[in-house]
Amino acid sequence: MTEREATETPPSTRPHVVIVGAGFGGLQAARGLARAPVNVTLIDRHNYHCFQPLLYQVATATLSPADIAWPIRHILSRQTNITMLMARAEGVDRDRRELLTSEGPLAFDFLVLATGATHSYFGHEEWARYAPGLKDIEDATQLRRRILLAFERAEVASDPETRRRLLTFAIVGGGPTGVELAGSIAEISSHALAPDFKRVDPRTARILLIEAGEQLLPALPARLSAHARERLEAMGVEVLTGRPVIDIGPDHVTLEGGKSVSVSTKIWAAGVRASPAAQWLGADADRAGRCCVKPDLSVPGDPDIFVIGDAAAIVDSEGKPVPGIGPAAKQMGDHVARVIKARLAGSPSPTFRYRHAGDLATIGRNAAVVKLGRFELTGFLGWIFWGLVHVYFLVGARNRIAVATSWLWNYVTYQRAARLITGDVETPPVGELERDGRSLHPPN
Amino acid sequence: MTEREATETPPSTRPHVVIVGAGFGGLQAARGLARAPVNVTLIDRHNYHCFQPLLYQVATATLSPADIAWPIRHILSRQTNITMLMARAEGVDRDRRELLTSEGPLAFDFLVLATGATHSYFGHEEWARYAPGLKDIEDATQLRRRILLAFERAEVASDPETRRRLLTFAIVGGGPTGVELAGSIAEISSHALAPDFKRVDPRTARILLIEAGEQLLPALPARLSAHARERLEAMGVEVLTGRPVIDIGPDHVTLEGGKSVSVSTKIWAAGVRASPAAQWLGADADRAGRCCVKPDLSVPGDPDIFVIGDAAAIVDSEGKPVPGIGPAAKQMGDHVARVIKARLAGSPSPTFRYRHAGDLATIGRNAAVVKLGRFELTGFLGWIFWGLVHVYFLVGARNRIAVATSWLWNYVTYQRAARLITGDVETPPVGELERDGRSLHPPN
Repeated sequence: MTEREATETPPSTRPHVVIVGAGFGGLQAARGLARAPVNVTLIDRHNYHCFQPLLYQVATATLSPADIAWPIRHILSRQTNITMLMARAEGVDRDRRELLTSEGPLAFDFLVLATGATHSYFGHEEWARYAPGLKDIEDATQLRRRILLAFERAEVASDPETRRRLLTFAIVGGGPTGVELAGSIAEISSHALAPDFKRVDPRTARILLIEAGEQLLPALPARLSAHARERLEAMGVEVLTGRPVIDIGPDHVTLEGGKSVSVSTKIWAAGVRASPAAQWLGADADRAGRCCVKPDLSVPGDPDIFVIGDAAAIVDSEGKPVPGIGPAAKQMGDHVARVIKARLAGSPSPTFRYRHAGDLATIGRNAAVVKLGRFELTGFLGWIFWGLVHVYFLVGARNRIAVATSWLWNYVTYQRAARLITGDVETPPVGELERDGRSLHPPN
Repeated sequence: MTEREATETPPSTRPHVVIVGAGFGGLQAARGLARAPVNVTLIDRHNYHCFQPLLYQVATATLSPADIAWPIRHILSRQTNITMLMARAEGVDRDRRELLTSEGPLAFDFLVLATGATHSYFGHEEWARYAPGLKDIEDATQLRRRILLAFERAEVASDPETRRRLLTFAIVGGGPTGVELAGSIAEISSHALAPDFKRVDPRTARILLIEAGEQLLPALPARLSAHARERLEAMGVEVLTGRPVIDIGPDHVTLEGGKSVSVSTKIWAAGVRASPAAQWLGADADRAGRCCVKPDLSVPGDPDIFVIGDAAAIVDSEGKPVPGIGPAAKQMGDHVARVIKARLAGSPSPTFRYRHAGDLATIGRNAAVVKLGRFELTGFLGWIFWGLVHVYFLVGARNRIAVATSWLWNYVTYQRAARLITGDVETPPVGELERDGRSLHPPN
């Protein structure tokens, strides 16, 4: 189709671009096609776009879900050629050019799969129920529930062993999510929760950060990684590097070498596996399940189907794999919109070039590590920079104000705004309450 | 026990006051005992105190759960003789003087049951699954899910009948909660959602407010009630009074006289039944299950056990039943603390005297009805007054700021801050998507 034809096509017969997933990549692709002579349908199983980098703050009671999530419909409401469909994608029929969804099949002319990634337990899927991961809002409120409930249950327990186990937290995986969770749990224990418990002292909580590799934050230079470790240790986090986990059960984590720790709350921040986009397409995938794509992000042999973001495997100009982070997904979303527009105009597809902006992680109050090119920041300045970047990239003025206000309030008062145990799930009682209730009231 | 003995008692042998429920009544009782020579244990199945009057704003996406809920532990953290226990109360053993809980039995010297109320379907418990009510945070996020999902599903449906049903909302019960929900759903349909849907027009949503009695807001004078009705009708709400509901099914509501309406989202704001406090005690209850109490709020025959708030049945000085509202529960909480202190001091128990401050309900933007004694307000002034009162009674500076900010933002932008469909529950697909997806894109 030439450009002339495309621009003259009436709306109802325009090519139909179907985008699956409204994360960073899918949303950016949708925006990039705003003025293109196409009809775009954006499909997501949720009605909101979630700002994943701040999920750990929902899990640790600083922010509310609505602070970091925004209705997709509203984000796109001014784009006339785009509509949103809340449905679950279930497969692709390449021959019939249809996406299979929970609401029935949907025909496409171009398909963009931006379906993201989920947790990988390296073949130990049975660990998932004991050590949940953190990929979406439901995960975050569920983790918040587990973390806060551990303190509540410790307060009831009369057996010192039980109390100790309930006040032990293990985070598996020393990337940014693991570091941020460990730091945040250390802070909530020693500040927000400390004055509110009578029987247990939340400050005695034991927080383990377990990393299989030799270094925390492997994307960062050794100096910054060592700094992050020092800061975490100063906050009371026990950092164990070079210690792969070989078993996780309801009440323990076992490390290589046989050391077993009695721990009630376990969080998985280690492995990631791509969503089944490659499987749906019957295309080649790498070990993490990511679909191998061509330099224009299309699937080999099918120039109208693209895979982007965490679901795609591609290398940058230096031959290194493009990392599974938000900025990379956004760049791919931008790129795929350009490719589709070029195709409609009869031009050759441009090649995707990844530009790495930098890496950063926050550790806690006044502490973060930042590397942008040759520029490095730590401590208070790094922390302020980290905060500004994250507020800037949030969607919508209201969310920016809400997050900034919550952080300011948190900084001034040491309190957490969203200490709610929600999502009623049957939790087995500790059942160790002393009959006279006396143990709840220390003599003072 | 005389006053001298009480003040000299060491903390570990002080009388143990167990309070069940951290709503308005229970929390107030706990606070009232802050300086008394007793040990207080406050038990709730949640870790938070929820400000029920604003629950409908969580259900209609204006506020986040954390804006109207606050950790009980934190509220009470400065009171040294009080501790909080997160557990479910399951009964009372009057002979052994023990409260039965999910964590085991707990001995008490004084017991205060402030266990609140739940929905009553007047013997039609099967309606509960189709028409949920609004009593706690979980109810509110579940209702938010149903309301927002109805619009999402209408957008997918191709059959006009289905679309119509999905865009019809029925609220059963014309008290303050029903009025506030109806007004709020009308507003969200005509403002926040309207520009974001392509295929259905949320402004065409049909909102029915069904009341069995002859008047909305029966606690208010006829003039204010008529005003509320006019305002609701001006906002597009269909108000049906004098029309009892005789059947509710998955997709319909049937009114007395046989009229059946096809409606997807049904909300129950009609009947209330007390929690089983009277049953636990084997005490007399009124028709709504509320425990009949003596003038000092104790249970007949057991001066150490009290029932307060929505779980108690008592009349005011004019012989009218004390209403099941927050201020009444707070006054009873205050009173029971005074009675316990009087008992410890060997003084006679004072008699509870209810002071009715007034009644108020908000209808929507710039519209509320307020009656305080002989003083009446409507329109913008009433609405501002309603807002100030509610912000004032929220717990904690942070919640006051968060709620006031959300309202201001909502007022200026017409947007709702918390339009999230959370709480993944399997929802059967509409399955009416047109294969070519064309219907999603109106020609424009």
